[in-house]
Amino acid sequence: MSKEITSRSTDYSQWYNDLVIKGGLADYSAVRGCMVIKPYGFSLWENMRDTLDKMFKDTGHVNAYFPLFVPKSLFEAEEKNAEGFAKECAIVTHYRLKNDPSKKGALMVDPDAKLEEELVIRPTSEAIIWNTYKNWIQSYRDLPLLINQWANVVRWEMRTRLFLRTAEFLWQEGHTAHATAKEAVAETVQMLNVYADFVENWMALPVIKGVKTENERFAGAVDTYCIEALMQDGKALQAGTSHFLGQNFAKAFDVKFSDKENKLDYVWATSWGVSTRLIGALVMAHSDDEGLILPPKIAPQQVVIVPIYKGEEQKAKIDVKVQDLVKQLKAMGVRVKYDDNDNARPGWKFAEYEMKGVPVRIALGLRDLENNTVELARRDTKEKQSVSMDGLAERIVQLLADIQQSIYNKALAYRDSHITQVNTWDEFVNTLNEKGGFVSAFWDGTSETEDAIKEKTKATIRCIPLDNPQEEGVCVFSGKPAKQRVLFAQAY
Amino acid sequence: MSKEITSRSTDYSQWYNDLVIKGGLADYSAVRGCMVIKPYGFSLWENMRDTLDKMFKDTGHVNAYFPLFVPKSLFEAEEKNAEGFAKECAIVTHYRLKNDPSKKGALMVDPDAKLEEELVIRPTSEAIIWNTYKNWIQSYRDLPLLINQWANVVRWEMRTRLFLRTAEFLWQEGHTAHATAKEAVAETVQMLNVYADFVENWMALPVIKGVKTENERFAGAVDTYCIEALMQDGKALQAGTSHFLGQNFAKAFDVKFSDKENKLDYVWATSWGVSTRLIGALVMAHSDDEGLILPPKIAPQQVVIVPIYKGEEQKAKIDVKVQDLVKQLKAMGVRVKYDDNDNARPGWKFAEYEMKGVPVRIALGLRDLENNTVELARRDTKEKQSVSMDGLAERIVQLLADIQQSIYNKALAYRDSHITQVNTWDEFVNTLNEKGGFVSAFWDGTSETEDAIKEKTKATIRCIPLDNPQEEGVCVFSGKPAKQRVLFAQAY
Ligand SMILES: [Zn+2]
Ligand SMILES: [Zn+2]
Repeated sequence: MSKEITSRSTDYSQWYNDLVIKGGLADYSAVRGCMVIKPYGFSLWENMRDTLDKMFKDTGHVNAYFPLFVPKSLFEAEEKNAEGFAKECAIVTHYRLKNDPSKKGALMVDPDAKLEEELVIRPTSEAIIWNTYKNWIQSYRDLPLLINQWANVVRWEMRTRLFLRTAEFLWQEGHTAHATAKEAVAETVQMLNVYADFVENWMALPVIKGVKTENERFAGAVDTYCIEALMQDGKALQAGTSHFLGQNFAKAFDVKFSDKENKLDYVWATSWGVSTRLIGALVMAHSDDEGLILPPKIAPQQVVIVPIYKGEEQKAKIDVKVQDLVKQLKAMGVRVKYDDNDNARPGWKFAEYEMKGVPVRIALGLRDLENNTVELARRDTKEKQSVSMDGLAERIVQLLADIQQSIYNKALAYRDSHITQVNTWDEFVNTLNEKGGFVSAFWDGTSETEDAIKEKTKATIRCIPLDNPQEEGVCVFSGKPAKQRVLFAQAY
Repeated sequence: MSKEITSRSTDYSQWYNDLVIKGGLADYSAVRGCMVIKPYGFSLWENMRDTLDKMFKDTGHVNAYFPLFVPKSLFEAEEKNAEGFAKECAIVTHYRLKNDPSKKGALMVDPDAKLEEELVIRPTSEAIIWNTYKNWIQSYRDLPLLINQWANVVRWEMRTRLFLRTAEFLWQEGHTAHATAKEAVAETVQMLNVYADFVENWMALPVIKGVKTENERFAGAVDTYCIEALMQDGKALQAGTSHFLGQNFAKAFDVKFSDKENKLDYVWATSWGVSTRLIGALVMAHSDDEGLILPPKIAPQQVVIVPIYKGEEQKAKIDVKVQDLVKQLKAMGVRVKYDDNDNARPGWKFAEYEMKGVPVRIALGLRDLENNTVELARRDTKEKQSVSMDGLAERIVQLLADIQQSIYNKALAYRDSHITQVNTWDEFVNTLNEKGGFVSAFWDGTSETEDAIKEKTKATIRCIPLDNPQEEGVCVFSGKPAKQRVLFAQAY
């Protein structure tokens, strides 16, 4: 199997697919629009998931698990939410197969096993969860309820991309219930900040925090907060959302609580989620034409050691040195692999680990042993140097931290140089066409203008940044008065 | 809400449901046969899952994720597997809802969005996984392939019980591929031993290892290995299975590899799984009429500390002592909670933690402070004693280990006293009716006899124990010659 990768300049989209598949992250499956997450990709997801899970628990949340299925009558209860997801729902209608009399060995859906009420496979779980919360919440003493769920969800998509847009994907969805609007908004913002912290400090990807316009809001939310990141092709990617749901779901499912004065009121809600889509963002933001570049903090392997030798005697000498180093690194919490598989040549291994984005590669041969050195190579910049074995473990730990910071800085510099203020429609269009990235422009605040701009340029309002300055201006499209600039971009 | 529990002697089945619901482990949902796993229950599952996951990784396995959906044509490829699961499959037939013109606000399945090929929601993933392995395995160098998946699966059940039998449940399923039958059998046995280790040493539940008869074998397996545990009502429960699948799936999905001599052969397979059903086993094996009894090693909370005080001044003094103890316990890896919520009285808290099965409870009031003591209570035996605060943390760690062992010993004594050798049909029936447990009896080796016994007594052959002695005997039912005793029981 060839490991050649299409270059970004030749075909960015093919480059992305090549990386995902040849880097061992995911594979297509026999099911339309569904992917297989391969072991290397899943190990990356485990690191991301475990880090986020700890952050959720540190902010007082607990995990639970709710059913995969949503009965149609519950699904339709919150009207806007139902309307928003109705067109992309997988529906279970039957609960049994039987032998197909027309074809030996074949099965067919048993028409006698039709469900009385169809079941929607959750595209998101507000409906089933709020129907449950109804039984769990009576009094202010039951609040706040701070629950998260790690789950698979299904949204039927006509055009799919590995990780970025698949019919089934893995995610977490937080669903919280509060006594006041203020507390619920504070929770919404807190979780947005948790996401931003994770994406910036673990995934090394700078984000812009903001709120969505009505057009881009989650179906059923009062406000959708988001973090937006920029990919190397100048397109934006929504990396996480946190929704203030007001009392919409409490009203749809009749969830009331009695407050300290024994007065009944509807409960206030939030929901927030990130998904395996983040892996797509990670790939597109940092990688290069030789393969993946993974931030050390979440890389499945942080360091790989490749021995270069002829014969068992040399190998034995190298083993001794390496085993000592591996032991030191593991004690310092480093994820290290010694690849002494002798079915593959060092050059092949170098290319393989470059492809897989292992942040640090160490190679050592007989000359190194004699000189008490190793060759130390970093994946992100491809710099190589010969360094002493003395103090090597400490040096590697420091290097991993440097690489993490360096990957972030690079993405930040790119992002910052791709936020362009424009004041005319020509500038707007030219910037999108020639430079890409975020375009900061005055907008008159109407959905009509937003729709018209999307129609003409495929750009949407990614967000109204938090603490956005309010200023007098003229809408870049309609020429009508505008109160603030917002960020437009083409997006994944 | 009353927390009263039905006693085991009054109604064992109701006792179980009471514990699960009032103990905060799970709840019924609006979806027929599906449960909600509540935060306390999910925290227990997280501990079980994380422990098993580490064991799987320590034995060389990696995690991956495969699609929820199995296209019908793949599902039916391995004929016995398909036949075994066809009658309990949830089937997706459509991918869109639309507005129901006959009823405002209602949705209906869009008949124009019918799938060309129906999708089965995985009841188990051999089909979708082996269809993928076909692309991953070419040569002996690709073997063994040692992959596990944590996932939800759906098996439509007419009569459901929380945790024990639900339409959707959570589980892990290992799927491995090997170059030889010998390696695959060794893997099957290795994973059986991993399960036995986990269930005995973490869940404190003794198991019998054995193989299933053809009647009870996994659909599509050559051999099914199992571990069987005994519940307090004398019924058996299958706690985990590990299957040697031979080349059945490799043949169904045409998965061949070239060996070192470049000869093509079908790949050998195993699969193995345990599920949230284990939580049901845990509850039924150890708990009593006051609530759950959880083994310390997997209990969400191992120690709870309840202060007894009047007024803030007393509380402040207690706080100082407790905070010091909590810090010490946490440093020793103990999961400890200080419950100083002043909305609930100590007596209410005692009952609540008894219900939830927290292994150790510490209470302390002003007198204790003066005497430098605390009251130390263990959940399993309900023994209480006043002990010194000196060396308390070490004492607690030792106590947790003692409780773990003691719970196991109790379950073992019960299990061992409920394996009864019988030699006549009368003894067989009487033992089942009057004593329950495992009945060790000669069996003629035929499915007909097995079926007839099941028909008459509801007892099935739970397993043929590993290393079962071969001896001459007479079948307890048919009177025909028999080569060995096997273990019968009524089972969950
Ligand atoms: Zn540029
Ligand atoms: Zn008994």
